Amino acid sequence: MPDTSFFSKGAGLTARELCALTGSELGEGTDPDLRVTGLGPLDRAGPDDLVFFDNPRYETQLQATNAGCVLVAQKHLAVMPAGLPHLIARNVSIAFAAAGRALFPAALKPTPILGQAGISPRAEVDLSARIEAGVTIEAFAVIGPNVQIGSGTVISPGAVIAAGCAIGRDCRIGAHVSLAHTLLGNRVVLHPGVKIGQDGFGYVPGPAGMDKVVQIGRVIIQDDVEIGANTTIDRGAVRDTVIGEGTKIDNQVQIGHNVEIGRHSVIVSQVGISGSTTIGDGVMIGGQTGINGHVTIGDGAQIAAVSVVAGNVPRGARWGGMPAKPVREWFREMRFLTELAKKGRTTRNDSDE
Amino acid sequence: MPDTSFFSKGAGLTARELCALTGSELGEGTDPDLRVTGLGPLDRAGPDDLVFFDNPRYETQLQATNAGCVLVAQKHLAVMPAGLPHLIARNVSIAFAAAGRALFPAALKPTPILGQAGISPRAEVDLSARIEAGVTIEAFAVIGPNVQIGSGTVISPGAVIAAGCAIGRDCRIGAHVSLAHTLLGNRVVLHPGVKIGQDGFGYVPGPAGMDKVVQIGRVIIQDDVEIGANTTIDRGAVRDTVIGEGTKIDNQVQIGHNVEIGRHSVIVSQVGISGSTTIGDGVMIGGQTGINGHVTIGDGAQIAAVSVVAGNVPRGARWGGMPAKPVREWFREMRFLTELAKKGRTTRNDSDE
Amino acid sequence: MPDTSFFSKGAGLTARELCALTGSELGEGTDPDLRVTGLGPLDRAGPDDLVFFDNPRYETQLQATNAGCVLVAQKHLAVMPAGLPHLIARNVSIAFAAAGRALFPAALKPTPILGQAGISPRAEVDLSARIEAGVTIEAFAVIGPNVQIGSGTVISPGAVIAAGCAIGRDCRIGAHVSLAHTLLGNRVVLHPGVKIGQDGFGYVPGPAGMDKVVQIGRVIIQDDVEIGANTTIDRGAVRDTVIGEGTKIDNQVQIGHNVEIGRHSVIVSQVGISGSTTIGDGVMIGGQTGINGHVTIGDGAQIAAVSVVAGNVPRGARWGGMPAKPVREWFREMRFLTELAKKGRTTRNDSDE
Repeated sequence: MPDTSFFSKGAGLTARELCALTGSELGEGTDPDLRVTGLGPLDRAGPDDLVFFDNPRYETQLQATNAGCVLVAQKHLAVMPAGLPHLIARNVSIAFAAAGRALFPAALKPTPILGQAGISPRAEVDLSARIEAGVTIEAFAVIGPNVQIGSGTVISPGAVIAAGCAIGRDCRIGAHVSLAHTLLGNRVVLHPGVKIGQDGFGYVPGPAGMDKVVQIGRVIIQDDVEIGANTTIDRGAVRDTVIGEGTKIDNQVQIGHNVEIGRHSVIVSQVGISGSTTIGDGVMIGGQTGINGHVTIGDGAQIAAVSVVAGNVPRGARWGGMPAKPVREWFREMRFLTELAKKGRTTRNDSDE
Repeated sequence: MPDTSFFSKGAGLTARELCALTGSELGEGTDPDLRVTGLGPLDRAGPDDLVFFDNPRYETQLQATNAGCVLVAQKHLAVMPAGLPHLIARNVSIAFAAAGRALFPAALKPTPILGQAGISPRAEVDLSARIEAGVTIEAFAVIGPNVQIGSGTVISPGAVIAAGCAIGRDCRIGAHVSLAHTLLGNRVVLHPGVKIGQDGFGYVPGPAGMDKVVQIGRVIIQDDVEIGANTTIDRGAVRDTVIGEGTKIDNQVQIGHNVEIGRHSVIVSQVGISGSTTIGDGVMIGGQTGINGHVTIGDGAQIAAVSVVAGNVPRGARWGGMPAKPVREWFREMRFLTELAKKGRTTRNDSDE
Repeated sequence: MPDTSFFSKGAGLTARELCALTGSELGEGTDPDLRVTGLGPLDRAGPDDLVFFDNPRYETQLQATNAGCVLVAQKHLAVMPAGLPHLIARNVSIAFAAAGRALFPAALKPTPILGQAGISPRAEVDLSARIEAGVTIEAFAVIGPNVQIGSGTVISPGAVIAAGCAIGRDCRIGAHVSLAHTLLGNRVVLHPGVKIGQDGFGYVPGPAGMDKVVQIGRVIIQDDVEIGANTTIDRGAVRDTVIGEGTKIDNQVQIGHNVEIGRHSVIVSQVGISGSTTIGDGVMIGGQTGINGHVTIGDGAQIAAVSVVAGNVPRGARWGGMPAKPVREWFREMRFLTELAKKGRTTRNDSDE
């Protein structure tokens, strides 16, 4: 059983409850009153744990698992060990995720570091700030003039909220977050070290070095956005930087000034998005990818990890490579050039060593 | 009119004043007493806003703009809508930037988070620190023994300045900045989360794992340097890490030990510069580029984004690619290989699908 | 003499002591009682400094050095200037590192920012935390409920340790570090801004956007690990993220959930390691390299900088490129394609300009 000592287990869920919750079907011979309280991977789960099996690569682990119950797809029923309780899910990952959220509701959002509600006497809160009831502000957080914070929001230790920022309800603002010139919607989660609203990077050559281009825009973060640790988002120059509703951003992503990202997009760690680029709804961008400035990525586009997007990407497209192009084309080019290089080597091998 | 509520508008500037300030010429039919108080992009500006037009791509926006006044180049006068007040600039971007600095002087540098001058009773300032008059140290900042801070400098909440560091005059040290073994000149701006002067990454194999190579150098940051959020700069091993006067560094850049960067260089976000590399004056480095250790990049060189610099780059060169080479050569290679791959595909297409 | 004013010199070491310490041999004509107190590079060292010479490229600097004593390999004795005291080392870098550690013991680990032992009255320490004797907790650090901290450990200003974390003995926790759901061994060094134990990046598509996959694992950091500034390490989903004993990680590295790294591995700055990847013992990964999720890198493998590891890497392999392959193969392909492109250009040059 994996050690989940940081998240205490509750009463758990029965197989019947799990079926209702996840739209799954009770497996043959599975007791509807069977109860699980935890989650685990196949190789470490115990009899109280729910696991999932979705990748034939792990069949050996499935055969040996000590898990109490397995979420499995119809197509994999043939390899289920006899007598192992199981639930048949249409989409195993989605069902497992739903079960996880129900079993560990405390893991849905970061909790206060010091475990106490209310405003710490060791926080620095400007008298002009408007704090709704039910806000938690922990020690050494700083709330500047005219800041607004909605009820249910938690401001972690050391977070710094500059003048005039507005934070909606039920947000989680992590330790060492810095917000300036920023408006946040409801249920926004900012993990530790996120820096939002500092100057965009704008200079012009002057007589004695680079001169500043003033950055007078804002950052707008809509409802249900989640942003990973140490990510940076600059405020706009003469318009706003906008992150649309429900978009999820991983750690150490860099987002330049005037960037607009749509709703329900997913951006993996270490991606860099240059200034004034527009990204649609439901876009997926793999880790470490770099995106040029002033380009547009259409709704639903998917960009592979470690790509370089130089120009516009059509909606719904799947692109990758340096520079990024349609995935099929990119794969073909890579294959062709690799084969070519192999041939080249074969014919001139001796002189080469 | 874009919402610039975080930066209040002042009395503004007349067309005549703007011409004097930016070296522009009053457009035909433009009232010299016309006054603007704000800045905007073409598509959102209102009658109090100055905008610029420099890219024919946005001509439709120009035709429909509600802006009060347009900065435009001589060569684009033909497309100016009749009756739209305008100023003719030699360099539109530079003129617009100068106007912006005059209209929004408060945006030139970050301002204190809590809006108050002086040393907060909730800052921790070692008694041996030498703080000039006119320094602002905000709540929960930490100033170690023998630190020196020049007048006009603002230390933001939670910044940590370790023993012996010296900070010049009129600097802005952002929230959650950490400085150690570092000397800063005047007018240096460090955005939130910048970490300077921690150990460089040096180890040698030992009998029981990796052994430390001590890092006993310093970091020297000269006048007018600006450094973006969450950038990290390690101190030198047995020499100093140096960032030259007026150099501008974007967010999430990594600079290794012993690196020396010249004056008025520009380094875009997520660049990594390995240890002991020397970069000249007036160098431009595009985002996400990686630079090998122990190489030299000559004065005025320009390196494209997402490149990998493996060896020395001559002064004035324009390089790009992986590994980086002269831009013209790099483009030709990319074009040639792409065409080759296309041909290759055509001749063997069927087996490929 | 380089300015090492941040690290005071001690009594120093004699040539005889250095020989004993580093297993070196006294050079011909070198006084065994010669004493050095500092370290320097060849071009800036003074008569009290030890330097090393290991790269023929710097022979001019060697001829002109003012250093007091030189560590040199047998094979370079021929170029030693007459009369320059020297010690003959089997491995010059290792010997120089050993001398450095002996001359500057204070540089082995970060020291308290405020130079004082004990628990600052301005730290926030939960009453349920178990703090051994001899722990230093500096101003504005936050220690949550049930945290354990071993003797000799220093918690720097503004560090935030969330509920239930355990920190071993003689650790150094830098400024603005955030730890949650994390267990640390002994002698772990975390540089400023490191964020460990926040949510891994896990979502599934839901009816109204992306739904959270709960992350209920932990992060285990074993003894003698050192982690660079602003690096982020996510906690596991249903298993633990593990960093093995003695592993050294540079600045701005991103490590996803469930990653397991072995012992004595070295990971250079800006590397990204995707979720559920396993990395062996003694692995070296160059800067900015990206590693796919769910892959295995065998013990002792070396991955070149700026590579992309898409699949498993065998133990002991040396790989590089995008996608990474054996270094020899990668080099040959690059050479072949570059030559090919050159030829292509030659035959069609005119139309190309």
